[in-house]
Amino acid sequence: MRLPLHTAVFTLFLITAALCSADDPKTFVRFRHEGTTAWGLVKGDMVHRIHGSIYGDWSESDARIPLSSVTILTPTEPTQVFAMAGNYRSHLNEGPIPEKFRTPQPFLKTTSCLIPHGAPIVLPADSSQVHYEAEMVVVIGRVCRDVSEEDALEYVLGVTAGNDVSERVWQNDADRKDVQWWRAKGSDTFGPVGPYLLTGIDYDDLRLRLVLNGETKQEESTSRLIHDVASTVSFISQYVTLHPGDLIFTGTPGRTGALHDGDTVEVHLNDMILSNPVRSE
Amino acid sequence: MRLPLHTAVFTLFLITAALCSADDPKTFVRFRHEGTTAWGLVKGDMVHRIHGSIYGDWSESDARIPLSSVTILTPTEPTQVFAMAGNYRSHLNEGPIPEKFRTPQPFLKTTSCLIPHGAPIVLPADSSQVHYEAEMVVVIGRVCRDVSEEDALEYVLGVTAGNDVSERVWQNDADRKDVQWWRAKGSDTFGPVGPYLLTGIDYDDLRLRLVLNGETKQEESTSRLIHDVASTVSFISQYVTLHPGDLIFTGTPGRTGALHDGDTVEVHLNDMILSNPVRSE
Repeated sequence: MRLPLHTAVFTLFLITAALCSADDPKTFVRFRHEGTTAWGLVKGDMVHRIHGSIYGDWSESDARIPLSSVTILTPTEPTQVFAMAGNYRSHLNEGPIPEKFRTPQPFLKTTSCLIPHGAPIVLPADSSQVHYEAEMVVVIGRVCRDVSEEDALEYVLGVTAGNDVSERVWQNDADRKDVQWWRAKGSDTFGPVGPYLLTGIDYDDLRLRLVLNGETKQEESTSRLIHDVASTVSFISQYVTLHPGDLIFTGTPGRTGALHDGDTVEVHLNDMILSNPVRSE
Repeated sequence: MRLPLHTAVFTLFLITAALCSADDPKTFVRFRHEGTTAWGLVKGDMVHRIHGSIYGDWSESDARIPLSSVTILTPTEPTQVFAMAGNYRSHLNEGPIPEKFRTPQPFLKTTSCLIPHGAPIVLPADSSQVHYEAEMVVVIGRVCRDVSEEDALEYVLGVTAGNDVSERVWQNDADRKDVQWWRAKGSDTFGPVGPYLLTGIDYDDLRLRLVLNGETKQEESTSRLIHDVASTVSFISQYVTLHPGDLIFTGTPGRTGALHDGDTVEVHLNDMILSNPVRSE
């Protein structure tokens, strides 16, 4: 059988398009190097700088920089930061899901709380119980309002690792309770995220792990989220328009514990590690 | 008596500096006109376009545009939006101040909820009790972290009017309660602000009024804030770094009421009027 030329060309085009698909797993990093802020693709121990916007059209440039020589920044500069309460059964004592957590329970973190890989988590002077919370964090890729669960993943660019640092007394104390969680969840440095933005992977099957001073403290698959990425994004978008770069911390599994001056706390998402030292104010 | 020339020149300089002081009352507007976004000074029914940044150095240009021909935008594009709960005695039934409100009680609104003067407040399809809340809104002028009450006003650029639109069932319902106020206070269109940014005035002595379909519903002086502008900014800055353009809704006085499709709701701050129509989704 002999294919007409145009059919052969079109078939070749389809194969190429599939190979170069936006769905291939990619690892992006936002970084500073020699006074410039830029995006790059992480390949081995090198950063391949890109032109354009990760939210739109971009292309790989010829510039190659050793990963060890760049300053890693937070993966995005969001207009707003959401997080989810009670989104793993293991965080709700493994019993039946309480009524209120059968619908997604978002809350807001500040943008000021975000810090990159390597930056210190600072325990506020008047804090008493600052806990770690290992989380997968969703990065929004397109303006998103009132999207269905079926369409929601089209608006997600990828995920990163996050630590939803939380002051438990400000969050829960019945006597001197804060009305809302603004400082319990939003104090400066309470939002480590990074180091990379992972795209083209299955968000609902990642290994999430928290390691404190070398010891594993939380471990779970993101397959055990009560409300998965699609349903979380869809739910929030019924009320709030999400913008490119906006972040959603998806919730933490199991039991959390306190951070102390001198600790090193890591969130592992598959092979990616977000590491931050801890110090007192 | 004859003054030496340099003394006379220096005296003239001092007089000029005092007259041109940054503390003179000014009315700024952020607007769109012929495809460009810009800042201007409102003088009568004209906008005098300015060069530079309102957060730094700026100067008045020769460009004059009729106020009626510009599209008024939200006064700033903040990185985060705070609001205060229970910050007027009249909103707490005029009794003794409950223990928890003796310290400031901030919470977060989304940036997506902000809309300018004239844009519609949209009642979400599944909302049932959407209330107005007339408020004075603080605009931060400089990066601000851990400032004292004495210094706090140096970090405030000015104030605008705001409507802290609130869905009371999502906020308060004991049965099907949202864990936090993210949609009660942060749904799209729940943050009208504007129309102008007022600088060089005494924030603690402004008349605040809410007018619904021509009828006054809330009326109070900002002198009756429990935590005034300086103490509010200082308190938040102990935990969260504030950035130029960030907004703090300072709380609402008296009783609030429901908004309905077809209403027109106005927040008056002295002579400035923020007006928004209301419609159902």
